[in-house]
Amino acid sequence: MSDDYTSTGIAGADKILGEKGIPRGHSILVAGGPGSGKTTFAIQFLYKGATEYNEPGIYISLDEDPEDVKRNMSKFGWDLGKLEQEKKLAFINVSPVRVASSEKAGLIQLGMKEFKLIKLLEAIREGVEEIQAKRVVIDPLTMFMLQYPDDTERIYAMKDLIADFSKTGCTNILISELRGTGLEREHQFEEYLAQGVILLRTVMKDDKLSRMFQVEKMRGLAVDNQPRPYNITDSGIEVYPTLTVFK
Amino acid sequence: MSDDYTSTGIAGADKILGEKGIPRGHSILVAGGPGSGKTTFAIQFLYKGATEYNEPGIYISLDEDPEDVKRNMSKFGWDLGKLEQEKKLAFINVSPVRVASSEKAGLIQLGMKEFKLIKLLEAIREGVEEIQAKRVVIDPLTMFMLQYPDDTERIYAMKDLIADFSKTGCTNILISELRGTGLEREHQFEEYLAQGVILLRTVMKDDKLSRMFQVEKMRGLAVDNQPRPYNITDSGIEVYPTLTVFK
Amino acid sequence: MSDDYTSTGIAGADKILGEKGIPRGHSILVAGGPGSGKTTFAIQFLYKGATEYNEPGIYISLDEDPEDVKRNMSKFGWDLGKLEQEKKLAFINVSPVRVASSEKAGLIQLGMKEFKLIKLLEAIREGVEEIQAKRVVIDPLTMFMLQYPDDTERIYAMKDLIADFSKTGCTNILISELRGTGLEREHQFEEYLAQGVILLRTVMKDDKLSRMFQVEKMRGLAVDNQPRPYNITDSGIEVYPTLTVFK
Amino acid sequence: MSDDYTSTGIAGADKILGEKGIPRGHSILVAGGPGSGKTTFAIQFLYKGATEYNEPGIYISLDEDPEDVKRNMSKFGWDLGKLEQEKKLAFINVSPVRVASSEKAGLIQLGMKEFKLIKLLEAIREGVEEIQAKRVVIDPLTMFMLQYPDDTERIYAMKDLIADFSKTGCTNILISELRGTGLEREHQFEEYLAQGVILLRTVMKDDKLSRMFQVEKMRGLAVDNQPRPYNITDSGIEVYPTLTVFK
Amino acid sequence: MSDDYTSTGIAGADKILGEKGIPRGHSILVAGGPGSGKTTFAIQFLYKGATEYNEPGIYISLDEDPEDVKRNMSKFGWDLGKLEQEKKLAFINVSPVRVASSEKAGLIQLGMKEFKLIKLLEAIREGVEEIQAKRVVIDPLTMFMLQYPDDTERIYAMKDLIADFSKTGCTNILISELRGTGLEREHQFEEYLAQGVILLRTVMKDDKLSRMFQVEKMRGLAVDNQPRPYNITDSGIEVYPTLTVFK
Amino acid sequence: MSDDYTSTGIAGADKILGEKGIPRGHSILVAGGPGSGKTTFAIQFLYKGATEYNEPGIYISLDEDPEDVKRNMSKFGWDLGKLEQEKKLAFINVSPVRVASSEKAGLIQLGMKEFKLIKLLEAIREGVEEIQAKRVVIDPLTMFMLQYPDDTERIYAMKDLIADFSKTGCTNILISELRGTGLEREHQFEEYLAQGVILLRTVMKDDKLSRMFQVEKMRGLAVDNQPRPYNITDSGIEVYPTLTVFK
Repeated sequence: MSDDYTSTGIAGADKILGEKGIPRGHSILVAGGPGSGKTTFAIQFLYKGATEYNEPGIYISLDEDPEDVKRNMSKFGWDLGKLEQEKKLAFINVSPVRVASSEKAGLIQLGMKEFKLIKLLEAIREGVEEIQAKRVVIDPLTMFMLQYPDDTERIYAMKDLIADFSKTGCTNILISELRGTGLEREHQFEEYLAQGVILLRTVMKDDKLSRMFQVEKMRGLAVDNQPRPYNITDSGIEVYPTLTVFK
Repeated sequence: MSDDYTSTGIAGADKILGEKGIPRGHSILVAGGPGSGKTTFAIQFLYKGATEYNEPGIYISLDEDPEDVKRNMSKFGWDLGKLEQEKKLAFINVSPVRVASSEKAGLIQLGMKEFKLIKLLEAIREGVEEIQAKRVVIDPLTMFMLQYPDDTERIYAMKDLIADFSKTGCTNILISELRGTGLEREHQFEEYLAQGVILLRTVMKDDKLSRMFQVEKMRGLAVDNQPRPYNITDSGIEVYPTLTVFK
Repeated sequence: MSDDYTSTGIAGADKILGEKGIPRGHSILVAGGPGSGKTTFAIQFLYKGATEYNEPGIYISLDEDPEDVKRNMSKFGWDLGKLEQEKKLAFINVSPVRVASSEKAGLIQLGMKEFKLIKLLEAIREGVEEIQAKRVVIDPLTMFMLQYPDDTERIYAMKDLIADFSKTGCTNILISELRGTGLEREHQFEEYLAQGVILLRTVMKDDKLSRMFQVEKMRGLAVDNQPRPYNITDSGIEVYPTLTVFK
Repeated sequence: MSDDYTSTGIAGADKILGEKGIPRGHSILVAGGPGSGKTTFAIQFLYKGATEYNEPGIYISLDEDPEDVKRNMSKFGWDLGKLEQEKKLAFINVSPVRVASSEKAGLIQLGMKEFKLIKLLEAIREGVEEIQAKRVVIDPLTMFMLQYPDDTERIYAMKDLIADFSKTGCTNILISELRGTGLEREHQFEEYLAQGVILLRTVMKDDKLSRMFQVEKMRGLAVDNQPRPYNITDSGIEVYPTLTVFK
Repeated sequence: MSDDYTSTGIAGADKILGEKGIPRGHSILVAGGPGSGKTTFAIQFLYKGATEYNEPGIYISLDEDPEDVKRNMSKFGWDLGKLEQEKKLAFINVSPVRVASSEKAGLIQLGMKEFKLIKLLEAIREGVEEIQAKRVVIDPLTMFMLQYPDDTERIYAMKDLIADFSKTGCTNILISELRGTGLEREHQFEEYLAQGVILLRTVMKDDKLSRMFQVEKMRGLAVDNQPRPYNITDSGIEVYPTLTVFK
Repeated sequence: MSDDYTSTGIAGADKILGEKGIPRGHSILVAGGPGSGKTTFAIQFLYKGATEYNEPGIYISLDEDPEDVKRNMSKFGWDLGKLEQEKKLAFINVSPVRVASSEKAGLIQLGMKEFKLIKLLEAIREGVEEIQAKRVVIDPLTMFMLQYPDDTERIYAMKDLIADFSKTGCTNILISELRGTGLEREHQFEEYLAQGVILLRTVMKDDKLSRMFQVEKMRGLAVDNQPRPYNITDSGIEVYPTLTVFK
């Protein structure tokens, strides 16, 4: 792989990306439904980056407790704690809930907290500097976007975030939650702003569910846009770049 | 079953969950339409826990009168009152209506009551301590969520609830009401926040109705995501993990 | 039939309900489109109750004039006036319009009236006491629910109503109007709150309309949930529990 | 035909209504899309009533100029002007626009006019008295309903109108405009309040349009609810009660 | 053709209209999507009127610059400038933008302008008088309707416009923009108010697009309501009244 | 090609446009989903204009950094920097974010910035004058339109923009983002205002994605409106004007 691109950590996905991977410095939206393996994709990206490509990474959690993530991901044989100790991986927990639920009296004001945006950006910058990170994950971006009820503000906020990210030189995965379940859907504005979009969908045909991996867009790269089957196996996500989804 | 997981109380469901069951301490959303057997699933989880796995449980009712639940469930041969006396099962009624309908004058202010959230959480904690509960059910979560008309507040409230639950060490079932009836639908935000999602759906094909059990997601566990047929039999819910829904 | 259940007055429907009928004291939602026979079902339930099971009943009208109901139902050979005289049937008219349209000057304030909720509940209680009623019908519940534009208030109001009804010991039919016409639809919140739901639907396949009777839910009872054909015949509603809807 | 019913003026429609016709004194909603023949149906009902059943009628216009209606309907060979002179037919124009467009300065306040409801009801009563009318048409009811943006008010307004109509003893046709074009649609609240509902629909199958006549509901009468083909011929609307819509 | 009707200028369309054409003095809605040939239809109506039936016409532009319309239409061999000089055709530009974009400072107040309704109506009347017009086109009506966000006002405004138009004795084409692209759609209120409705639709079947001409309604006239194929040829719009849309 | 038209820079697209290309001075909407090649189309239009037709062009960026665009487009072998130096191409960056993200303190006010509309129009005029541009691209128009939440204002703003553009004599491509993904969709108002509309869609049939190029409308030009397949190849967009989309 050339210096301008970096591997996804998934052989089949890299093949779909023309054997090149993701353009360095780009922010890629990875969108899927519940149970589609979004977090698995993100952690696999960081784990393989750290262990196979010598690219340290940062996982910014906006929902799940990092300790839970580490435990849940151990089923794939990924020892994230070890990588953390070796400074090849850092976890930043910016979940706004944690603070509140530790002080019991705060429960009445449930839902009144805010993300401290500047703190988040500073934390990212410090983290990147500290472990010389080349990869960053925000999981999920949806929690961050919730703060901006106004369309225009939300779009500008995401543009700022991407601009800031691009200055770090890191390659970034932004996890996004899909609303609808059918093949026809409304595009989300994030798909237009991100520099690449990967869809992890679960499609029901009759009573059979199929998993569908699709690179919807990847700026600066000629890719295979066809939906391809994927699975969540014992060793993480596998994509089958030469098969079709429904047999 | 290992110590890290606990049985659902349904053989077919456990098989779908890789013969492991539900990860201990997790909060699982069980979503279904009217008549799909949501409460039956929840009570079966508590009953089997108490009688077969020595795991006492708490049923928190936000809608139905616990006495009605006990009576309705007796058709499966489950003697819930006996379990209650043996301190293997506790019922907590936090339905806000009950108070009002007993004082007749209050009827004009219909719909003006609120859940006392802190009281709920305290009651759960006390209940858990008193009978050393390992399983908790909230039925239905939907009633609880109604208090938060604002999207962001609702999400933070559910995150707080799950965080608090996870501290008790109990495995939790959160019952949720599905809106749509078709195979294509909008995901509910609860599906993203819960650590696992089980769908109990009734699908109409031509003029035949089929019941469909599906583990949409289960963090930390490799599961069979295919929809499988299930039925409500004389002895509770049965799931058929090797059959397909439409024959 | 055991003492815990009561007949619907329709042989085929009772068969679908496991030859048991409706659990006594429960409030059952009967939902259908215009012309689906909702009022016929409700009156048949009261008529058969009064004539065959010695269970007097009350019909609470929130829309149609009771005199019109009596006249319209005479086509089935049901002499409701006679039952009324024998105190086996009582009609309570709580339609808010009647008052206004009799005083001509009121027409400008069209739509400004309210149901007197407490009066309604008192009237029900008095009626039940007077004729020792065992069955109550509200036709349609939709008119009552219109008063509560707020979701939460509406849900609490219905819960209060059901709780109050259950104290009378009567078995209750709540008539509800369906919005959509297709097989896929949004569940109405009433379906979750009622203790049982019966759907009377008319489905169009190509250019042929079929009537479809379905017990969506019935708490405390194992029922046949399959949709079954029904018809409105010279002697009332007939359900065919062994046939399928589309031939 | 018995005294309790009156003919629609369309042989095929009467046959569908069990050879009885419409119950006297009832208000029937006739709903259809643009070009479905709603006004033709209404005028045919009045014309046949006046010429064949000696039942004078009143046409209340809320949209089209009565002179235009007379001219447009002359293509069916119906001389409405003659019936008017013979006092077998009366036209009441309550269109609120007419007044404004005659006084040019009023154009700036376009859309600021209101129906004078009481005047409308008085006009109907006077008209009924003057020609001893037995049939009344409101075309279209939709214009009248537009005044009530609030759901509850609209429902009560329509209930008042129907109650008032029923006192006149006349049989009434209320013309209503359908929104959607497909076979699946949302029921309009008017369908629940009217004592009968007749649908005049145009359905597109592939590239062929079929007209579909359907009695959705008719209180107090056993009817054929199947959709039947109809056409607008040189002599008015014809319904084919033994054919199916799509061949 | 009789004096009561006037040709559309399209042989196939006249045939569908029973060889009669459009009733004189009526206002006909011509609705279609982008690229469906709405303006071509309107100009062809005016051009043929002026050159073949000696009926001068007025084109009221609410969107496009009349000079652009003349240039665009020259591809059909229609010399509109010549007709204009011969006073057989007049162009009235009431586009509210033109004024603003000529005075550069106005750009900040973009979107703050209004149609001067009275001026529009006066201009029409003067134009009609000056060239003794028999045909009028408003292209598009949609721009005019945008001024009335309130449903009731919009309906009354359109009724006023039609009433005013009918006084001029001219036959009028009102161009309207369709929102949806499928065969099933919501009817627009304009379809009920106009005296005739012609649909110019483009339907996609698999990957083939077909153009579909349909007379949805035409008051006072028996017409062929079936959708028929049409094309935009070198000499304008052609309708094929004996073919079906999909072959 | 005649002087009145200009090539799209895509042989297949020009063929669909009757071998003429786009009418000079017109503003053409190019609408597509994420990853459909909208920016590639726009840059190819400018690149081919500059290198093959001696028509300098301006690219106005409202989203992506021009430097990123240049880098991303280099994969097609297009040296945009060289054209820029030769004054055959100019990039104008009016993205409102850039300013804010360079001054770190501004991050709190995220989403509070505005496009300076007059500055944009002045910049265009100056740019056009400086390099004698004949082609202009706005990418994406959607960002510009976001400023106008009110329907009427948005329409007038776009009309002003098109009117201003037409004065420059340039041929303009306005990039627009499609919301829905299915074949049936709501038309966007921009499709009615633009003088031409080209759709770049990706349609999913079963599990195969096809790219579909369609000229929906092109004022003043007879075009092939059928959807045709296209691809993004190593040398840019290719359209296949004689093939059908689904094989």
